[in-house]
Amino acid sequence: MQTDLSAALDIGGTKIAGALVDARGRLLVRAARPTPADQDGATVMRAVAEVVGELSAAPDWGRVAAVGIGSAGPVNARAGTVSPVNIPGWRDFPLVAGVRALVGGPRPVVLVGDGVAMTAAEHWQGAARGHANALCMVVSTGVGGGLVLNGQLHPGPTGNAGHIGHISVDLDGDPCPCGGRGCVERIASGPNIARRALANGWRPGPDGDTSAAAVAASARAGDEVALRSFERAAQALAAGIAATATLVEIDIAVIGGGVAGAGDILFAPLRSALREYATLSFVADLTVVPAHMGTDAGVVGAAAAAAQQSRLDAFAAAP
Amino acid sequence: MQTDLSAALDIGGTKIAGALVDARGRLLVRAARPTPADQDGATVMRAVAEVVGELSAAPDWGRVAAVGIGSAGPVNARAGTVSPVNIPGWRDFPLVAGVRALVGGPRPVVLVGDGVAMTAAEHWQGAARGHANALCMVVSTGVGGGLVLNGQLHPGPTGNAGHIGHISVDLDGDPCPCGGRGCVERIASGPNIARRALANGWRPGPDGDTSAAAVAASARAGDEVALRSFERAAQALAAGIAATATLVEIDIAVIGGGVAGAGDILFAPLRSALREYATLSFVADLTVVPAHMGTDAGVVGAAAAAAQQSRLDAFAAAP
Repeated sequence: MQTDLSAALDIGGTKIAGALVDARGRLLVRAARPTPADQDGATVMRAVAEVVGELSAAPDWGRVAAVGIGSAGPVNARAGTVSPVNIPGWRDFPLVAGVRALVGGPRPVVLVGDGVAMTAAEHWQGAARGHANALCMVVSTGVGGGLVLNGQLHPGPTGNAGHIGHISVDLDGDPCPCGGRGCVERIASGPNIARRALANGWRPGPDGDTSAAAVAASARAGDEVALRSFERAAQALAAGIAATATLVEIDIAVIGGGVAGAGDILFAPLRSALREYATLSFVADLTVVPAHMGTDAGVVGAAAAAAQQSRLDAFAAAP
Repeated sequence: MQTDLSAALDIGGTKIAGALVDARGRLLVRAARPTPADQDGATVMRAVAEVVGELSAAPDWGRVAAVGIGSAGPVNARAGTVSPVNIPGWRDFPLVAGVRALVGGPRPVVLVGDGVAMTAAEHWQGAARGHANALCMVVSTGVGGGLVLNGQLHPGPTGNAGHIGHISVDLDGDPCPCGGRGCVERIASGPNIARRALANGWRPGPDGDTSAAAVAASARAGDEVALRSFERAAQALAAGIAATATLVEIDIAVIGGGVAGAGDILFAPLRSALREYATLSFVADLTVVPAHMGTDAGVVGAAAAAAQQSRLDAFAAAP
């Protein structure tokens, strides 16, 4: 039988999603379970086993060449372990060994962080397609990302590269839960956009919704405090994106996630602020665009990472 | 005749240095001219021609396989042009075409920024040797740098990658001559260390020396204002180095240049501050060390970049 599919797992704090993905990025089989994030590690792993079990029961399972895992971070691709902030039962948890035991056979199992997986998806099928050097980001409850350099995904030795949410753009700024100060995420994530708006006098509507989406709706209606909170987030994102471009030379930044759904409320001040921070000649043409891939980005990207890695393995094994 | 040498040029605002460099990094022939930085572009190019003329008169010239140029930036490796901030007569100046005409033959001519060249030297022969992922920096009148990723020099498409001096670590900070705000260079360069010390009440000795080296000498003698100015520089460098490690996963940062000559006055607060900004598990083992290469780093690194690039050319041309 032809082995032309990747099996992909997308492991987050809310959901464990799986799919069999073909060489064109189509999802042939899907499976999902809620993440029992407040349970012990073995219970979380049994949910993974149920997803793998459903995939492996599909008639196409025999066509699977490689398995890709995108996981909430931090991950350690070198050790095959994960320690997701929002899954406390998993600390240095040997996820790769566990999945390898579930899938059997000689199939390579590739682990990357969820930001790297999303980047692989956008580069393969989405807004970063055709770009040899790109930063892809998710701006949501947290801020994550990944890099494409020289036409290749750059996961880094441990699968965490592109962690733009935790670079400091304000060295004297507010403490961040990561232990640092003035991190991009501390200023630009959805909860921080809402927190800042509330602290500066913004009040939610009658439904009591205090999400970043509610702040965005107020901003669209002309609320000055709401607009300023998005502008501050945009400024932090611009400083982080400009830093990335100045360090590694990217020509496009792709932004997905719930906060990117604010559209021009975010992108207009972001593009404006980018001109203030991306000043050197070689980064002046940097563009910022919304992500194209939807909620399937995680599994599609994990499949892409697996396919790329198994090609590299094949290359390395060639005489 | 065996072609086993690189010809290397290191072009700065003060000096144009050249050398023939062998496969072990030894300088067989040297030449240099002062940079006529206040003259027109053609005059500067004639100084380059004199250096190349001296090298090409050497008996070993026939062994030259490739030519490497490390230049003050910004450079544009894609276009083969340079626009060094401190050589006003050169703006989008076609340096690669000019050098190609001077050297003749089919030899590849490779252009990189001076930070990238210094990095190539430290990776080949110096403190970053054996490290697959490294940041190398010069902290001096300015702050520059370069990256090694996956065991390879990462010049980026235009030869400017690793420009750590112009990433913002203080998004509301002081304007930087580059047009940005709160850049690492604006806080950590030698002139800014001295400026900040003077502004806070530090006074030079009887010789009137207001250099960063004089501030370092006061700091070693226990002067609190001098110590605090170095600590602030160290904090900005730590935030920038941590950002780089968090974005691309490096395991070592190498620091050279005059300000690194302050030794523990810089490195002790830098290592301390790094623990505050490099917080995620995958960057916790990051180390910071002084550079090993001396003033020859520029030509040795340009030679290394040329050798690496011409091997890649040979690889690309292989059937």
